[in-house]
Amino acid sequence: MGKVKVGIIGIGSMGKQYVLMLDQGQAAAAELAAVCTASESRAQWVKDNTNNAVQIYHDANDFFNDPEIDAVIIARPHYDHPELAMKAFASGLHVLIEKPAGVYTKNVLEMNDAAKKSGKVFGIMYNQRTNPLYQKLRELIHSGEIGEIKRTNWIVTHWYRPQSYYDSSKWRATWEGEGGGVLLNQAPHQLDLWQWICGMPKKVEAHLHYGKWHDIEVEDDVTAYVEYENGATGVFITTTGDACGTNRFEIQLDRAKIIAEYGKLSVWELEMGEQEFSRTNKVPFGCPKATQIEVELDGKNEQHVGVLNAWAAAILRGEPLVADGREGINGLMLSNAMHLSSFLGREVELPFDEQLFKDELMKRVATSRRKAASEAVFADTSGTYGGK
Amino acid sequence: MGKVKVGIIGIGSMGKQYVLMLDQGQAAAAELAAVCTASESRAQWVKDNTNNAVQIYHDANDFFNDPEIDAVIIARPHYDHPELAMKAFASGLHVLIEKPAGVYTKNVLEMNDAAKKSGKVFGIMYNQRTNPLYQKLRELIHSGEIGEIKRTNWIVTHWYRPQSYYDSSKWRATWEGEGGGVLLNQAPHQLDLWQWICGMPKKVEAHLHYGKWHDIEVEDDVTAYVEYENGATGVFITTTGDACGTNRFEIQLDRAKIIAEYGKLSVWELEMGEQEFSRTNKVPFGCPKATQIEVELDGKNEQHVGVLNAWAAAILRGEPLVADGREGINGLMLSNAMHLSSFLGREVELPFDEQLFKDELMKRVATSRRKAASEAVFADTSGTYGGK
Repeated sequence: MGKVKVGIIGIGSMGKQYVLMLDQGQAAAAELAAVCTASESRAQWVKDNTNNAVQIYHDANDFFNDPEIDAVIIARPHYDHPELAMKAFASGLHVLIEKPAGVYTKNVLEMNDAAKKSGKVFGIMYNQRTNPLYQKLRELIHSGEIGEIKRTNWIVTHWYRPQSYYDSSKWRATWEGEGGGVLLNQAPHQLDLWQWICGMPKKVEAHLHYGKWHDIEVEDDVTAYVEYENGATGVFITTTGDACGTNRFEIQLDRAKIIAEYGKLSVWELEMGEQEFSRTNKVPFGCPKATQIEVELDGKNEQHVGVLNAWAAAILRGEPLVADGREGINGLMLSNAMHLSSFLGREVELPFDEQLFKDELMKRVATSRRKAASEAVFADTSGTYGGK
Repeated sequence: MGKVKVGIIGIGSMGKQYVLMLDQGQAAAAELAAVCTASESRAQWVKDNTNNAVQIYHDANDFFNDPEIDAVIIARPHYDHPELAMKAFASGLHVLIEKPAGVYTKNVLEMNDAAKKSGKVFGIMYNQRTNPLYQKLRELIHSGEIGEIKRTNWIVTHWYRPQSYYDSSKWRATWEGEGGGVLLNQAPHQLDLWQWICGMPKKVEAHLHYGKWHDIEVEDDVTAYVEYENGATGVFITTTGDACGTNRFEIQLDRAKIIAEYGKLSVWELEMGEQEFSRTNKVPFGCPKATQIEVELDGKNEQHVGVLNAWAAAILRGEPLVADGREGINGLMLSNAMHLSSFLGREVELPFDEQLFKDELMKRVATSRRKAASEAVFADTSGTYGGK
């Protein structure tokens, strides 16, 4: 096998970007072989915007049965990810799915099971994991040298979207089309990074506000409180309603404090662990000395191209993925737990009842407000991934 | 009347500081005339540390009936504030109480009523209100020019206390002695400033952890979520367990974002209100332009001396107080609501049932763990007021 021959299903905002990246050779180990879209205008867009020969399918079954493709990128709306991934595995294809892994964990578990049985390479587009900032943050914490986590706090309110964004496609920000709002569309990156760096909590209590800043039926404002197994607490705040938002991630540990903000890591290390100091010190207003240490961030943030290249290298040579597709369930479990907590008006323990969540979601889908026909707009998403 | 002749009741950590401030003439319009303490060693401390003649009382009734004093500072433990203030008003004295106003709002309401009926000057030691940072922040928001508040977020975890602090007096950090932990002792300043700047919320849901970082029976770790009348949300996080804590107050408004951190205000102003932009803009990823503006902070942070001087000037010449004693109930109502939410395991609407709160508190007082006799230590509190 020379290059991985890739098919893309779903030619919306993200699918178009993958078409361009692959056709232009940005991911050296992969090349575009086929696309699948039901839309004539999007098929035409692919013809108009590619230099190399690309097979165009309108039917998913034909697409998945194309013997020329080795692997597929699934860039259809969230609900379709598990079903299409399972079709792909059944056809012997490697898979890369867009985030989120799906809309509810019940069928994502089935997808993960199918992935495992297939033995194929399964990745998920968590492009923010390629950011040296979060890689370094994770490395510091996972080293264990700065002690246990005591408190996590992520204010991630820099996902501003005006009403016209929501009006740009019918499926956006509906229960039926996306199964949620900011938690399903914008914040999945941070939900993933949060658990990738700090681990999964065991309890979630969330306050969601639906259509608070926009004329939409799903949440556009979230404040969630969590507790971890070791007793640590956490807060996660996100919205698409703050025009001058914040992206500030603070983690308190027994021996250090770390703040990721403005694209850099600020680290303060304590001369000794706080709990040990508290037990042994005799001065009522004593405090262990903290020293700010310099942290160098190495490497380039390769984002989507980095994820694509790692996925192709995993297929060709068994190299590690940026994000294993099966880990996609973690961020989704967080977002589902936040929704479920809001639906039920109480705290939710993880793992929650997956069927209960699906039932609650489907109640909302059943009465989902269909949007008035609006022109699909090819929105320019460059610079909107919150990588800063 | 030349200078206001002041009596101080309660010669603990704070009382001693007021003795020194007044005896040394730091508050020009007031002078120390008398103190009241049941403790022989504290009476001796006053004799040893004052240059001017000071009448020493061991009995509160004698103290309040001293015809030589015009006004009293109440620096006894929190529970005693309302009762002693009412005794003082009944004796025709002006009053300045230490924060918090009391431990439960039921008797604080009675105190406020007595203050009103007395016609005397009634102040509360919210020394952080003298900070030009918070004054400017309040002025910006109250001007109305940057729109309605959308979100408030205060991480105020810089109140570190080691175990030896809690071991330094028997009354500290017990239900019986303080009626709470960080919310009653350290955070009252920020609870007051939060409401002074942003107004009172209508709903509170709080997660309190009791004795999480210390061997104490009260809370030393708090995460509270609130909602305001206009739909805005807020988060308040405080603890005495973070050795390298944070003091970061962020407010999102329709036309601006403000962050108070590291002793300065960072302000970003939007070219137009977010809600108006969202309604009128046609670009899916459009965002109103934000400009960072310089804010100059004028004036000195006079802290306790500033509060004392304003109180004396209010008595002598009717000038405005830094903080009206009757406003003390607001911060206490926030802290009571957080406790009540935690006691009941549910969200609490304001105003809550004051008797219910008192009953719940008294259950805990009834089983309060008396501490093994520990030496009272004159802890040096300078530099611990979180004024940074």
